[in-house]
Amino acid sequence: MNVQGVPTRTIWLKKKDPRVVQIIDQRALPHRFVVEDLKTLGDCCRAIKDMHLRGAPLIGVAAAYGMYLAALDSPKGLAPAAWRAWMRKAGARLTETRPTAVNLRIGVERVLAEILKIGSPSHGIEAACAAARSLEAEEIENCRRIGEHGLTVIEKIHRGKKGRPVQILTHCNAGWLACVDWGTATAPMYAAFNKKIPVHVWVDETRPRNQGASLTAWELGQHGVPYTVIVDNAGGHLMQHGLVDLVIVGSDRTTASGDVANKIGTYLKALAAKDNGVPFYAALPSTTIDWDMDDGVREIPIEERESEEVTQIQGLDGGVIRKVLLTPKGARAANYGFDVTPRRLVTGIITERGIARASRAGLRKLFPKKQ
Amino acid sequence: MNVQGVPTRTIWLKKKDPRVVQIIDQRALPHRFVVEDLKTLGDCCRAIKDMHLRGAPLIGVAAAYGMYLAALDSPKGLAPAAWRAWMRKAGARLTETRPTAVNLRIGVERVLAEILKIGSPSHGIEAACAAARSLEAEEIENCRRIGEHGLTVIEKIHRGKKGRPVQILTHCNAGWLACVDWGTATAPMYAAFNKKIPVHVWVDETRPRNQGASLTAWELGQHGVPYTVIVDNAGGHLMQHGLVDLVIVGSDRTTASGDVANKIGTYLKALAAKDNGVPFYAALPSTTIDWDMDDGVREIPIEERESEEVTQIQGLDGGVIRKVLLTPKGARAANYGFDVTPRRLVTGIITERGIARASRAGLRKLFPKKQ
Repeated sequence: MNVQGVPTRTIWLKKKDPRVVQIIDQRALPHRFVVEDLKTLGDCCRAIKDMHLRGAPLIGVAAAYGMYLAALDSPKGLAPAAWRAWMRKAGARLTETRPTAVNLRIGVERVLAEILKIGSPSHGIEAACAAARSLEAEEIENCRRIGEHGLTVIEKIHRGKKGRPVQILTHCNAGWLACVDWGTATAPMYAAFNKKIPVHVWVDETRPRNQGASLTAWELGQHGVPYTVIVDNAGGHLMQHGLVDLVIVGSDRTTASGDVANKIGTYLKALAAKDNGVPFYAALPSTTIDWDMDDGVREIPIEERESEEVTQIQGLDGGVIRKVLLTPKGARAANYGFDVTPRRLVTGIITERGIARASRAGLRKLFPKKQ
Repeated sequence: MNVQGVPTRTIWLKKKDPRVVQIIDQRALPHRFVVEDLKTLGDCCRAIKDMHLRGAPLIGVAAAYGMYLAALDSPKGLAPAAWRAWMRKAGARLTETRPTAVNLRIGVERVLAEILKIGSPSHGIEAACAAARSLEAEEIENCRRIGEHGLTVIEKIHRGKKGRPVQILTHCNAGWLACVDWGTATAPMYAAFNKKIPVHVWVDETRPRNQGASLTAWELGQHGVPYTVIVDNAGGHLMQHGLVDLVIVGSDRTTASGDVANKIGTYLKALAAKDNGVPFYAALPSTTIDWDMDDGVREIPIEERESEEVTQIQGLDGGVIRKVLLTPKGARAANYGFDVTPRRLVTGIITERGIARASRAGLRKLFPKKQ
């Protein structure tokens, strides 16, 4: 998608030196657009661990490129077995950076599988790079297809709006900043916008961490998509007054029966959508579907994160990014990362293979074999 | 309620000089406890207009004390008619400070009615002061009674909890800081706590303006009531997991049929409460009931406030209270102040006369005559 008018992705090889991986340091967004060079495995581990980048698909691709950097960095003249051990150790380092991120392991294993096929260090660098690039291409293609399928929903609503913008509400950042390009929840919005269908996006600020106000608002704005930031409390009121035609969110984990775990607060928006007859879609690549899980509310473990994300907030003051304290000093705060939206509240699940009903049968129709 | 162990109210006459009205400058909370002297009508108007104090009942009482300050300040030797004109002008100045605040007018008119009865400036100061004090006493008594009636709900839940704390969720600040003492939504919590019933309060931070994180957390903490601050997104998840026994919120305006307009986001919590079988109560003095209104969603006008309350936030950094920018520079933001919770989601309405069903019949049973 565009940044300052230039098509941009979240990760790429440096043009003048393909031994360097470049990423957007998302910690500075929306206030500054900072491109960061990753030259070593250590750089890559730090970037993932300290959340210079985030979002499941992007973390996976970054890990794959981390393996490529490790290969570049491997001592010359290693025997094949020693080299494989070196690469496995690099994979372990990457995997440790964020232990619960499934895609991290996928990215590492994807590269390992390719280089273990080859076995020799001499072609290993090339193979690692090719594996990372192929994972990257797949992630982009999945998002593009999600956009294509989701577009049909927007087009249908558009036909009833007589030229008025289709009003879409989204929560958190399931945008291209979380992926490599297009995003998941945002992909249908970009697809519609690029097709000149008038859309307007209500962006939940998404406390804590404010990924909506800082990331979604930024990326929509950079691409030119009209948006309005609202507090997380506002969506119900908007829906009561007919100001939302459609909700699209992402998913961090989806059960085989169609329950959707996503950023905390998603469930509240789904309830409001149901109460007001507004369609509610989750857009996700099938890799987030956990085919062994059924009841999301009971079975999906919800991460509790540090309370400082609730008691403090980061913003810009006089050109400086600062953290300020919001609560009484020493206040107790709890910070649940996600909630689960039960399938009965989900109108449909937009995947790379089409739109499924939020049910085991619906998902199995698109993905017949156990994944 | 207690502040640093000392019983405190939001407004009082200065002990050593009853010609001075003292208030808590709530803009500095929760970071600093600042007591402000109001010596003139102008001081009082500024305090109301610039929101040193807020909350409908408190604004009303402050306006009444503002009339007392105006009386104190009136030129000596005025003829009765000229003095009455002076006082009416003072009332007009107060009323203009926040044009939509109904209680502001109530406070002014209450004092005017008393002094017009007397007519002469010589006893006017005393009469104004007495009128302000009687309004203040009424507000306190209403809140105390709301606490008493709401307590019965908490006691009933307590009996089923085998000693574990009763888990109460609240939104915004319908606390004593919005009133003079006790508060509305908080009154039952303080009543239970004072009776040694174990309670724990989930405090929604309540974006924008963050009255939960800054005011409710502070006042509960000062009185010793255990609480945990959460983001506005978290309540649904807590209810799904059985961590909330009861929701109590305030109300800015209530229709005769029991629809409740309260801080934006209240509706989302009511939906989650309904979806999880959690009782949802609104606690309010009957003065907030608008007997001429029926359908709250259609009829109650919702104030749109300046977008800076969404794009910026205030907090403490290195001992300094700062505002930081949360969104991309120039981002569009919308800021709806309230939403309406339809009566079908409200378990009961706790008033100074008892707990009513959220219906016209229920409210009329407690308040038989048109108010």
